[in-house]
Amino acid sequence: MRLLLLSNAKREGSAYLEWALTHFSDFFKPAAVSRIVFVPFAGVTAEPDAYVDKVRPVFAQMGIEVDGVHRFSDPVAAVRAAQAVVVGGGSTWKLLRDVRGLRLLRAIRQRALNGMPYAGWSAGANLACPTIMTSNDMPICDPGGFDALGLVPFQINPHYLHGNPPGFKGETREERITEFCAVNRSVWVTGLREGTGLGLVDKQLTLVGDGGDCRIFRYGQEPREIAAGADVQFLMAE
Amino acid sequence: MRLLLLSNAKREGSAYLEWALTHFSDFFKPAAVSRIVFVPFAGVTAEPDAYVDKVRPVFAQMGIEVDGVHRFSDPVAAVRAAQAVVVGGGSTWKLLRDVRGLRLLRAIRQRALNGMPYAGWSAGANLACPTIMTSNDMPICDPGGFDALGLVPFQINPHYLHGNPPGFKGETREERITEFCAVNRSVWVTGLREGTGLGLVDKQLTLVGDGGDCRIFRYGQEPREIAAGADVQFLMAE
Repeated sequence: MRLLLLSNAKREGSAYLEWALTHFSDFFKPAAVSRIVFVPFAGVTAEPDAYVDKVRPVFAQMGIEVDGVHRFSDPVAAVRAAQAVVVGGGSTWKLLRDVRGLRLLRAIRQRALNGMPYAGWSAGANLACPTIMTSNDMPICDPGGFDALGLVPFQINPHYLHGNPPGFKGETREERITEFCAVNRSVWVTGLREGTGLGLVDKQLTLVGDGGDCRIFRYGQEPREIAAGADVQFLMAE
Repeated sequence: MRLLLLSNAKREGSAYLEWALTHFSDFFKPAAVSRIVFVPFAGVTAEPDAYVDKVRPVFAQMGIEVDGVHRFSDPVAAVRAAQAVVVGGGSTWKLLRDVRGLRLLRAIRQRALNGMPYAGWSAGANLACPTIMTSNDMPICDPGGFDALGLVPFQINPHYLHGNPPGFKGETREERITEFCAVNRSVWVTGLREGTGLGLVDKQLTLVGDGGDCRIFRYGQEPREIAAGADVQFLMAE
């Protein structure tokens, strides 16, 4: 498998997806990808065409063309023929609902398992997990089941943020993930801070980005911080 | 109906539920409530008994005794016989899963529609809405459907927070609620800031608390701020 799962697209003080450019480039170049099928369904207030227009110039910088999967009369066939699939962020709930509704879950999964590069950020990273249960998103629609692509055996929590803003007394992200672990005791959760991501090439999993350490959770264990470049291979054990 | 739906329990610089005491007292006294059935299932890392132990001294200050619904051999019968039902916060997902699993949804709904006082905070306020779709909580388990008690026709977003902490570039709460409204176009959403709540006595809906204005959303309308004491009756129109 070839996966690139990023926490976020936007970053303070830089252009949309700018921080991710070198990671995309390192990921797509060895696979000689010149054209991607983009899945825009996490967009809710942005129409699919508008979302494609937003990412097109980003990938154009790498000489990669972008086709929105929604423009194909047969989206399953488009995925089957794709050089790579890229899934943008937004609402994980709407993304899963629409991907499931178009019967793309199985198509994407089969291609990815057979080596087609899959990249996603935020909701698109969540989609690669067994379920979307560690999403931060507001459940704006019923996705028809929580199961997702299951390309990795662990869960990702994108936009991981440690602690609460001053004065806010709601549960922290860590408390929420600890609750997830209490109910789902045999699953690792990776808290991906903004500006970080996970890359998988063949079976080698690597933490990428300069946004800080990845915070890792599992039931009955103290959370630990893992630095970029450290060994995260244990996350891949089923 | 008699409902008291509060945003939160904890507040900076005061004891657990302290800010809500006068609101509980105003709510339960006219109904001569001396004993409540408490629903602790939103607790995940806290065991049900421990959760009851935590709220007991709060209600003791009003001379009200607390029975955990989980301690009854027949929880449905306990709800049918209750003077009032109070639902604590935590994970809205686990709350709905367990309330549904014990067949309490219908029992609580019927009693509340017939005038039994229902109070809840955070997840317990969300549960009174048509669905739990405007929860902030991480989906740690599948609740077997998103539909909830439907005691009010609008949605509540508890712990409403305007804007993002500095440097955080994920979607704001307002953006998430706007997405909900885009997918659910005929539903009002009330963003309840911490230290606020909604009270319903007979058919009169009132914003309570001193935590600030309530921010109200609906598809195609500019969000508006409603102050405590202002008329929010339009939210009750189906």
